[in-house]
Amino acid sequence: MAEKKLKGLGVSAGVRIGKAFVYSPVRLVDIESRKTDDSGVELQRLQQAKAKCSEQLQALIDRAQSTLGEDKAMILKGQLSFLSDPVFYPPMEDLIVREQWSAETAVHKVVTQVAGLFESMANEYMRERAADVRDVGNRLFAQLSDHQGTRLSDIREQVILVADDLTPSDTVQLDKSLVLGFVTRIGGKTSHTAILANSLGIAAVLGIGDGMEAIGHGDELIIDGSAGDCIVSPSAATIETYREQQKQDESERADLEIYANRAAVTKDGFRVELAANIGTVEESLSLLEQGAEAVGLYRTEFLFMGQSQLPDEETQYQAYSAVAEAMRGRPVVIRTLDIGGDKELPYLELPKEMNPFLGYRAIRIGLDRKELLLTQLKAIARAGVHGTVKIMFPMISGLEEWREAKVIYAQACEQLRQEGKPFADTVELGIMIEVPSAALMADSFAKEVDFFSIGTNDLVQYTVAVDRMNEKVSHLYDYFHPAVIRLVKQVIDASVRNGKWTGMCGTMAGDPLAAPLLVGLGLHEWSMSASSLSKVKKVIVHVNRSECAALAERVLALDTAAEVRQALEAFHRQVEPGV
Amino acid sequence: MAEKKLKGLGVSAGVRIGKAFVYSPVRLVDIESRKTDDSGVELQRLQQAKAKCSEQLQALIDRAQSTLGEDKAMILKGQLSFLSDPVFYPPMEDLIVREQWSAETAVHKVVTQVAGLFESMANEYMRERAADVRDVGNRLFAQLSDHQGTRLSDIREQVILVADDLTPSDTVQLDKSLVLGFVTRIGGKTSHTAILANSLGIAAVLGIGDGMEAIGHGDELIIDGSAGDCIVSPSAATIETYREQQKQDESERADLEIYANRAAVTKDGFRVELAANIGTVEESLSLLEQGAEAVGLYRTEFLFMGQSQLPDEETQYQAYSAVAEAMRGRPVVIRTLDIGGDKELPYLELPKEMNPFLGYRAIRIGLDRKELLLTQLKAIARAGVHGTVKIMFPMISGLEEWREAKVIYAQACEQLRQEGKPFADTVELGIMIEVPSAALMADSFAKEVDFFSIGTNDLVQYTVAVDRMNEKVSHLYDYFHPAVIRLVKQVIDASVRNGKWTGMCGTMAGDPLAAPLLVGLGLHEWSMSASSLSKVKKVIVHVNRSECAALAERVLALDTAAEVRQALEAFHRQVEPGV
Repeated sequence: MAEKKLKGLGVSAGVRIGKAFVYSPVRLVDIESRKTDDSGVELQRLQQAKAKCSEQLQALIDRAQSTLGEDKAMILKGQLSFLSDPVFYPPMEDLIVREQWSAETAVHKVVTQVAGLFESMANEYMRERAADVRDVGNRLFAQLSDHQGTRLSDIREQVILVADDLTPSDTVQLDKSLVLGFVTRIGGKTSHTAILANSLGIAAVLGIGDGMEAIGHGDELIIDGSAGDCIVSPSAATIETYREQQKQDESERADLEIYANRAAVTKDGFRVELAANIGTVEESLSLLEQGAEAVGLYRTEFLFMGQSQLPDEETQYQAYSAVAEAMRGRPVVIRTLDIGGDKELPYLELPKEMNPFLGYRAIRIGLDRKELLLTQLKAIARAGVHGTVKIMFPMISGLEEWREAKVIYAQACEQLRQEGKPFADTVELGIMIEVPSAALMADSFAKEVDFFSIGTNDLVQYTVAVDRMNEKVSHLYDYFHPAVIRLVKQVIDASVRNGKWTGMCGTMAGDPLAAPLLVGLGLHEWSMSASSLSKVKKVIVHVNRSECAALAERVLALDTAAEVRQALEAFHRQVEPGV
Repeated sequence: MAEKKLKGLGVSAGVRIGKAFVYSPVRLVDIESRKTDDSGVELQRLQQAKAKCSEQLQALIDRAQSTLGEDKAMILKGQLSFLSDPVFYPPMEDLIVREQWSAETAVHKVVTQVAGLFESMANEYMRERAADVRDVGNRLFAQLSDHQGTRLSDIREQVILVADDLTPSDTVQLDKSLVLGFVTRIGGKTSHTAILANSLGIAAVLGIGDGMEAIGHGDELIIDGSAGDCIVSPSAATIETYREQQKQDESERADLEIYANRAAVTKDGFRVELAANIGTVEESLSLLEQGAEAVGLYRTEFLFMGQSQLPDEETQYQAYSAVAEAMRGRPVVIRTLDIGGDKELPYLELPKEMNPFLGYRAIRIGLDRKELLLTQLKAIARAGVHGTVKIMFPMISGLEEWREAKVIYAQACEQLRQEGKPFADTVELGIMIEVPSAALMADSFAKEVDFFSIGTNDLVQYTVAVDRMNEKVSHLYDYFHPAVIRLVKQVIDASVRNGKWTGMCGTMAGDPLAAPLLVGLGLHEWSMSASSLSKVKKVIVHVNRSECAALAERVLALDTAAEVRQALEAFHRQVEPGV
């Protein structure tokens, strides 16, 4: 077969060579209705299918609970309970016995009817239930079907997983150690699959579109997760080229590994804290080995997404405690719910907005729906008993919001005290700096907060007034814009003057090119995806803070992002021989 | 009839008492098709209707050209040419003669068919033409109809105009001197009607919704354009109360009139320039009498809106020249096209965006579609011969954009030179400061631009990350946010250090409460809606700059918008006795 190159989005770096596992689950489609002469046989088939589904779901729930925490198991538990629901299973048996329908037809009729019922409801949360009903229907259907499609649990060797898309419920079932890479038809840089791939070091090329038709189950594949390339049935020569690339990557990785256990200290003794951004308990498990000294950003919204309702205090407490424990006393900075903007929670029924990034999101929701924030703060304070947690409020734009949030935190502690639940009462409270007004007021904030964490992604968006997802203007989005650097400096300086510390948890913190500048500005804590830690540390240990400070001063006098980039590249080349 | 109070949006202040003129134009609706025995009569009716429509349109065009400039006349010219179009009028005659349809039926059939044809086209510009076709159809239909509905040209005495909505083409026909106020069913603070009402001092209550059904043609009405109240059939006592209010307003206005011809100079001799924001040629005509010393913001997008295509260089040149001439040598700051965001131009086919305020708008479009900007700059440079025009680029976020815009301006001048067209070659070039990054880079910009104009509306939006149209978060929108005031100070200081000047053309400039602060910060040029000029001037002439500077220093040390407002109110009360 001739070699064929497909183009997608490279969202997680790495070259991988392996066999394609094309994930094509059986779906409950419009089948031809079929009557039966032998209801007894059909009834038995249905009962067996139900039993197998129960078993399968229970096994998945167990696995999810032990490796991923309670939160992900909840989706599956909901499905398991549906399987025995009086509106769901008994009507199927009824259709077989009374109307002589085949098991498949009975499943199809009931699922269509029940899902349709949910879909017609006004309440968005109930509408979302329709997906669960169909999912359980698919499971039953797969059990009844001769052709079972491919299932993720069929993966027995290392493969490159090829799929239309992967849902959170799919990835729960996945043995990630067998996955070399992801290739999907749809999905972008902020999709669930992209985040998962990045945090697990799985190479990924997403959004290759209809090109996917060219990939057959078992085909030889090469993917390059930096370039976004996917090569189907590569020639021997192509394989050779990419193997070379792999060797290079490998030696670079080995080269970087020596940094994992070194402290992040400049040659002249300025020490910074290198931390990781995480979204799930799972991601925290191997952080210490990867060289992270802390969790600088725990994005709690993943605990709230892919759910059918708000996780209660207990569920949140368990997740936060698990991360605190995994980090064995090292700091874990937990960001309160940052929902809204481009992140939806169906059961919260957020309003449709003209400009969601300038709308009802993050702390604005938390201060409006106080119960939600209060519950989360209680869970975090309780988790503080199991390690060192810190709380960070997102999207703060003015002093009033911060003060209001602090009051709610005090209420949370007071309630815990009354309820007699143990909690940490020395939790540091800080704010995200991602709204320009907060950066501009840093001197006022620094008198009251314990720390800052600069979220460069949003800060750049607002400072330059650019939605970075909008391709018509994304060329203007650049964290090297001199205005952004000036704000970063203001924030760090304000914290230093007041004996506080400043972190950064946006993409900029993980960019080795930015590292000397950030050292020069005196950034204290750097939080990034775990895969960037060693690369950044390698730069830090090879520079002098004094030289970096001089660099920062030069950069602050520049007019454009292009000039800044040039200056940083020149500095990088100077350091390089020593690196 | 019992008094009834309706609630709407107060978008243009003032209490007005008068008779309701309910504007209900005849619309081409689905009529019953009717055949005729006498095609001759029908043909004659149609021909007469056509002749009357032509006359009517020509009269409207003449009026529009003399009072409103070429731009608004173009809509009507397009309609006039349709009236004689071979696909439009001859088929109507045909239907009468060959198929014995009545004139009304013939008009209805052709209009439905032609408009339908346009609507089915993929090109948005062509789809928009359907509205013109229907509009001409309505005119013919009104001429043929016994019941002609009410027409704006029927207004013969002073009335309060009540309408579903008013389009630009409606208001062209309106004798504004007979309109005391507007009441509409739909429309908000940024609608065409709101802007028109404000600039002409017509009181307006918009968006009263279905409450409008309570208003009958000829009913007695009171409207309060500040409170957004509309009272139908008021009692004698209510009328008395509002007459008192009117008297008070009147005496305040008389009190303010003495300021119209005074210079805006503080007691200790700091002189500022008070300018007006305008959107149309019409608004510029009486500015000098209203006490404006300049046009600080000419919003050119109104010249581009309500059109079927881009206005050419000549059309723009005429509009800009008319304003320059009306201002008799006083400065006219012309802002280049600020489209996108919430302002659409159908014929430009702008992309649908997730966050339009952070998207493809203003100078970003101008630098992408250079011909558009080039044409406008040529027209402005030519208009410079007729007065003192200055050019201002909107939404500049970095030095590169400004430099690129300057290059296009140089090209525009070069082309004019080659074409031998006279133009002003000493036009000042400045930028809007409305993106935080531009404010933060003011020192760099100040070395290269001739002036700044701070657009507080957008600057606040981006600095605080709030869409002010979004009611869930609009409470966070406040130009007294200390972060905004810090940015304003940075910008003014940077301009002063470099011998340049700074203006402000956002709502803040027209707020008397803000005036002492802005004097204290040293703002040079203040641009606002004409109706605010005297109110602001009254404050300026009663303060000392030195005291205002001390106030500004105090304010800059405050933490919250609420504290700033308090400080300003306290200062205002101190001044008040002297005012």
